[in-house]
Amino acid sequence: MSGFGPHGGPVGIVGLGLIGGSLARALQAAGLPVVATDPSSAEEARAAGLSVVDDVAGLALHRPEIVVLAAPLRAMRAVAAELAEALAGEPGWDPTVTDVGSVKAPVREAVADAGLGDRYVGAHPMSGTERSGFESSSAELMQGIPWAVTCRPGDAEAGVAGTDPDRLERVLRLVTGPLGGTAAVLTDKLHDEAVALVSHVPHVLATQLLGVVAGAPVRDLALGLAAGSFRDGTRVGLTDPRRTEAMVTENAAWVAPVLRLAARDLERLADELDSNAPTHWFFDRPDPVRERIGRSGGTRVTGLRPGDGSGADVGSDIEVVPLTGDWPTELVTRCAAGAVVIGFDERGVELQSPR
Amino acid sequence: MSGFGPHGGPVGIVGLGLIGGSLARALQAAGLPVVATDPSSAEEARAAGLSVVDDVAGLALHRPEIVVLAAPLRAMRAVAAELAEALAGEPGWDPTVTDVGSVKAPVREAVADAGLGDRYVGAHPMSGTERSGFESSSAELMQGIPWAVTCRPGDAEAGVAGTDPDRLERVLRLVTGPLGGTAAVLTDKLHDEAVALVSHVPHVLATQLLGVVAGAPVRDLALGLAAGSFRDGTRVGLTDPRRTEAMVTENAAWVAPVLRLAARDLERLADELDSNAPTHWFFDRPDPVRERIGRSGGTRVTGLRPGDGSGADVGSDIEVVPLTGDWPTELVTRCAAGAVVIGFDERGVELQSPR
Repeated sequence: MSGFGPHGGPVGIVGLGLIGGSLARALQAAGLPVVATDPSSAEEARAAGLSVVDDVAGLALHRPEIVVLAAPLRAMRAVAAELAEALAGEPGWDPTVTDVGSVKAPVREAVADAGLGDRYVGAHPMSGTERSGFESSSAELMQGIPWAVTCRPGDAEAGVAGTDPDRLERVLRLVTGPLGGTAAVLTDKLHDEAVALVSHVPHVLATQLLGVVAGAPVRDLALGLAAGSFRDGTRVGLTDPRRTEAMVTENAAWVAPVLRLAARDLERLADELDSNAPTHWFFDRPDPVRERIGRSGGTRVTGLRPGDGSGADVGSDIEVVPLTGDWPTELVTRCAAGAVVIGFDERGVELQSPR
Repeated sequence: MSGFGPHGGPVGIVGLGLIGGSLARALQAAGLPVVATDPSSAEEARAAGLSVVDDVAGLALHRPEIVVLAAPLRAMRAVAAELAEALAGEPGWDPTVTDVGSVKAPVREAVADAGLGDRYVGAHPMSGTERSGFESSSAELMQGIPWAVTCRPGDAEAGVAGTDPDRLERVLRLVTGPLGGTAAVLTDKLHDEAVALVSHVPHVLATQLLGVVAGAPVRDLALGLAAGSFRDGTRVGLTDPRRTEAMVTENAAWVAPVLRLAARDLERLADELDSNAPTHWFFDRPDPVRERIGRSGGTRVTGLRPGDGSGADVGSDIEVVPLTGDWPTELVTRCAAGAVVIGFDERGVELQSPR
């Protein structure tokens, strides 16, 4: 396989909310054929120039090479079942199935239960806004962003095959090629653990900040004095609460322990504040992260490559991993240590590692 | 008194860090005479066109009408003592003393202990960045922002006089006039309670988020996946940890109870996540605040006035409180309910209330 789309099929997208809509726009802007379906925003999506069909069965008629499940988490099971049914009615169609859900283990389970497990590669674009729906979507939201792409490790003894390397490559080429993003290749478990820390728990703390102000006697006064620290600290708490709740409850196994850690730390800090005890441990503990964020010039290293004009020294190394042997497992090992896939050349996958 | 600066004296600023430096630049940009002192950034400040003297005694020679203590919280006591000494050496000089500290009760105590309590009006500009020092200062940071201005209620029985209304008026005119800001007039207690909620606790939660990632086995991977929710949720955690720690420890009495509330809520949510119990209470609780922020189009109502082109319907009412009777207490009552001072006209103080 030498580039994205060797089979000539379009990308199919099921669900045109904020993320699905943005993905459809970004792929179309990159010149890729896109066909999508979403009963609730078909009209606006057509008005925006997208090719929209009535349902998943209609999507199947276009025989997309990749089908992206961009439905809400709670609808994944139903959508996967619809796709399995459509697939049964289109002999010879061999799509790769991926998704954009913010939690990966439950989506893999839903897709596997529908009989699509061997076609599946998980994906999660690390981008969003506090708004939702197709009306808030934009191509920019999906251009040049970090992705997590997840695969299933093989287990010969248990008779479980690992993720198909060709399907993994197809999804990685889509993400790093036309979409200009980077991809961390991970197991579902690593993804769900890391994303609990940098996305789900931040959503919970933003919601907590808003909640405590909502119940305060000085609420209106406090909101009148709110400036940058409150605005930034609560931004994602303004998101549709059902969406945040779904994300958090689907990833409860990783989120709950971090919330317990936070509760313990805050209780300890409160005790120390009450008794005038030293609190340096709390305020100094983030120093390694402060230093790393300072070094990379931000929390994102997206798209920073030597010689592309985005900075001479970006604090990273590029190398190539050949597409031979068990290269998916090699990528998972490297990405677990912070590397990301930035593209492909004739020798294999280009991997960028923090220095 | 009909405008700012009737006595013709300059504004004196002690301390040219991020806030003092920005204030000096903003006042100078507004055409006011400014004289400042700060041994550690005198040279850069002079290079930026500011009039800088060697020390507080040198500042006294210019007989400023208002002296702003813009030193770090831990230095307030020392700076107030220096000012008291300089004042003793300049008979007939009658400055109003104010400050820019993020906690108000401890600063009032420090200033009162130096014998300057009757000249003091507290002030806190609700603006900042995660950077510090004169090199990060800018006039914009102090232009058109919300301020809290604090006064001492009188207590005839205890023989305590309330804040001098003329001095309060002078500070309010400075903040709402040349600086184009709004001012919530509050007691120290109300200020410290409200600001714990919208500034100090957000700083603690941002620090907590960074701290938990710093200690995580998947740290580098997680930072590679971090996007908007983590960037915004941790921004103020990147601030100089000593500055954040000082702010939080000086306001321990108000911060600690909110941290205990947060710990209790997060523990409860973790329990519910572990047992698949309903979690709607947590995610829906902020609804009144979401609604209010949505209505005002943001968390700030700064500078929104009918007819100034910033919006026909800003969800607020303007009225005038005459400068007669105990108007400072009237303002405190009104501001506690969410009103802010936006300026003066010939009839008195213009007050804007949320509808």
